Amino acid sequence: MMQGIFIGNELCDGRIVNTNQQWIAKTLHDNGFFLNRSICVSDDEDDLKDVIKETLKKARVIITTGGLGPTEDDRTTEVLVRTLGKNSVINKEVLDEIRNYFKKNNRKMPKENEKQAFFPEGSIVIPNARGTAPGFYLQHDDVHFFCLPGVPREMKPMVESFVLDTLKMNCSDLSLNLETSLYKCIGKGESHCAELIQSVYPLPEGLSISFQVKFPEIHIRLHINKHIALEKVSKNIKQEMTHALKGICFSQDINMTFQDYIINKLITQKLKISVAESCTGGLLSAFITAVPGSSQILDYALITYSNDSKMKLLDVNKDTLNSQGAVSEEVAEEMAKNLKRQSGSDIVVSITGIAGPDGGSENKPVGTVYVGIFFHNEYQCLTLNLSGSREMIRQNTVFKTMMALNDMVNC
Amino acid sequence: MMQGIFIGNELCDGRIVNTNQQWIAKTLHDNGFFLNRSICVSDDEDDLKDVIKETLKKARVIITTGGLGPTEDDRTTEVLVRTLGKNSVINKEVLDEIRNYFKKNNRKMPKENEKQAFFPEGSIVIPNARGTAPGFYLQHDDVHFFCLPGVPREMKPMVESFVLDTLKMNCSDLSLNLETSLYKCIGKGESHCAELIQSVYPLPEGLSISFQVKFPEIHIRLHINKHIALEKVSKNIKQEMTHALKGICFSQDINMTFQDYIINKLITQKLKISVAESCTGGLLSAFITAVPGSSQILDYALITYSNDSKMKLLDVNKDTLNSQGAVSEEVAEEMAKNLKRQSGSDIVVSITGIAGPDGGSENKPVGTVYVGIFFHNEYQCLTLNLSGSREMIRQNTVFKTMMALNDMVNC
Repeated sequence: MMQGIFIGNELCDGRIVNTNQQWIAKTLHDNGFFLNRSICVSDDEDDLKDVIKETLKKARVIITTGGLGPTEDDRTTEVLVRTLGKNSVINKEVLDEIRNYFKKNNRKMPKENEKQAFFPEGSIVIPNARGTAPGFYLQHDDVHFFCLPGVPREMKPMVESFVLDTLKMNCSDLSLNLETSLYKCIGKGESHCAELIQSVYPLPEGLSISFQVKFPEIHIRLHINKHIALEKVSKNIKQEMTHALKGICFSQDINMTFQDYIINKLITQKLKISVAESCTGGLLSAFITAVPGSSQILDYALITYSNDSKMKLLDVNKDTLNSQGAVSEEVAEEMAKNLKRQSGSDIVVSITGIAGPDGGSENKPVGTVYVGIFFHNEYQCLTLNLSGSREMIRQNTVFKTMMALNDMVNC
Repeated sequence: MMQGIFIGNELCDGRIVNTNQQWIAKTLHDNGFFLNRSICVSDDEDDLKDVIKETLKKARVIITTGGLGPTEDDRTTEVLVRTLGKNSVINKEVLDEIRNYFKKNNRKMPKENEKQAFFPEGSIVIPNARGTAPGFYLQHDDVHFFCLPGVPREMKPMVESFVLDTLKMNCSDLSLNLETSLYKCIGKGESHCAELIQSVYPLPEGLSISFQVKFPEIHIRLHINKHIALEKVSKNIKQEMTHALKGICFSQDINMTFQDYIINKLITQKLKISVAESCTGGLLSAFITAVPGSSQILDYALITYSNDSKMKLLDVNKDTLNSQGAVSEEVAEEMAKNLKRQSGSDIVVSITGIAGPDGGSENKPVGTVYVGIFFHNEYQCLTLNLSGSREMIRQNTVFKTMMALNDMVNC
């Protein structure tokens, strides 16, 4: 039996949603393990002690998150040590690392952080590449403890590397023997994807399919229980899915995001890009430059937020701005044309739109966005009618633009 | 002690996030109750039975969601009845209601739905206005059971009416009567914040403090149990915390993010800003333009990613680039000076740095970033030595820049 213990008052009073539970449960499941139970418990010492004691009676694997920080309400190590009747020992290397972490930021390590270098005797430290709180792994009798920090971005890499590897090595008997094929899709919604693969239903015994929306991507997983499923049947279904998802499945690699995929494609094809953004205000440029190596393709970008700057930096005609408005096909086109002339890039993108919450009108409601794209010497304008918050409209504009570019590059 | 039990395989394999837990915990907390523990458990009969048995030993109030549907894997009522050694009895009125529900939709009630009219002997039915699965309330010895459906829109009205009223009536001794003061801090890490308020420890009875990292913000909460704490003592502690966190606490309002806070401050003070970004590649501009109304202060921004564009758009001297390198104090200064001249903005920010993963050297490792800032006519250069991934270095650069601006605006 595998159990998660999620520690923190912020979970018990509903301040935050326990996304760690979902993420860990899912990651384990994708790797053939099942988190039978998960419990949220407060920072209270007695509560935590009780939960650990009870869990010890049943579970073979216990994964905890939270309570490894430097403050007074972080008690996981301390309570675990006391409950198991172990000693707490200092790890000098970790202490040095924490000191260095602060030194690098020109600060002296506060006294409080010292406790993050203490671990239960006999435990293996799980390094934290993104913060000061390392996790640890401890075998106690028949029970495998993995104690991880509660901050998702620190916890996740520890699960992906250390926890999964250790489970596969030391607890393979708990594995469901699942084989999972992943199809990462872009450009269609969840139900559309489901429709495309309808011919594989009803699924043969031992096979199941799950959907996950990871905006803007849809991840489809085919799970094959190798204890039950016939190999030949599984192979056929896999082929059928590959065929059905052709054109929208951009990768089967869990580590490849759409962002990496499209930007690396531009880099490989040596396609120089220039960008002029209004309503997205830098988001598209930030999307491109997030990928290492993007300096090979992005020379510069202009965030022309005001009308003045559209005229000054992009030679947009004053009359066009006055007669058509800054948010118009015509302005998008002038922005793109003049940037094309200025930069000579292979790809030129201009964006002008109304991100809201104000600024909409009957003819051009909030969410109206024009995207002008030059691909080599061919020009086209996308008209988007988006909904949602300001941030959603801005992000969606970036994704739709990159999807359009993806189509052009594939042609 | 109050405990939630959340039943369903979809929770244990991570298919869905347990938003019911967060919603119930928050609703209870807003009404003065604390859900000490929450457990997710699979549909498996033995697992569920074990969890109910264990919970019975500790909890005064048990709230369950899920497992009240008509299908074979819905087992809450059945397992509860068996675990408590009670009889299951049919409720004719409920049966008629379910029949009518189907009749209204021109369907005959499937045989499976009959089981939804069975309840543990002695329980009170909690009507479901939005589905066929009613909940029920059962007192067993000292324990109060509330069993609710798992569908959020069916479950929520039951909590808001029946559960809260019944808790206030029958379990008022569990009410916390909590008052919480929030301090939203920026610019210091969790342990540094803890150090600043060290003088309030040891806390008087009835008071507690919790920390929450919401990068880049640290949220500190002072919880006052009004049953126990003395009013005068609480007031003093509140004052002491306000004093200790002066300068880093930017808001006590839960809805105010640092981003909104600083950008709105610039808007209020009518401080025009221009930006020239290299390694952050648009992230700072996107940060600013994410806030509605930012068009009043941001005229334009230049993403000068290449050396060429630094020369072309910002008149950076070729010799400076060659002798000092693009990532240097000197280039940051030229970028800022020339942008200041071009734009005439009150605030001018230039950023040049090495976001990694490649491009670092011994003298200038990955994470070296220079931020040139003009605030009116005063110039200063921040030298940052950041660590972490490319994305973390880029984001941290933006946050550090905004924090520096915040200090300048406050002076």
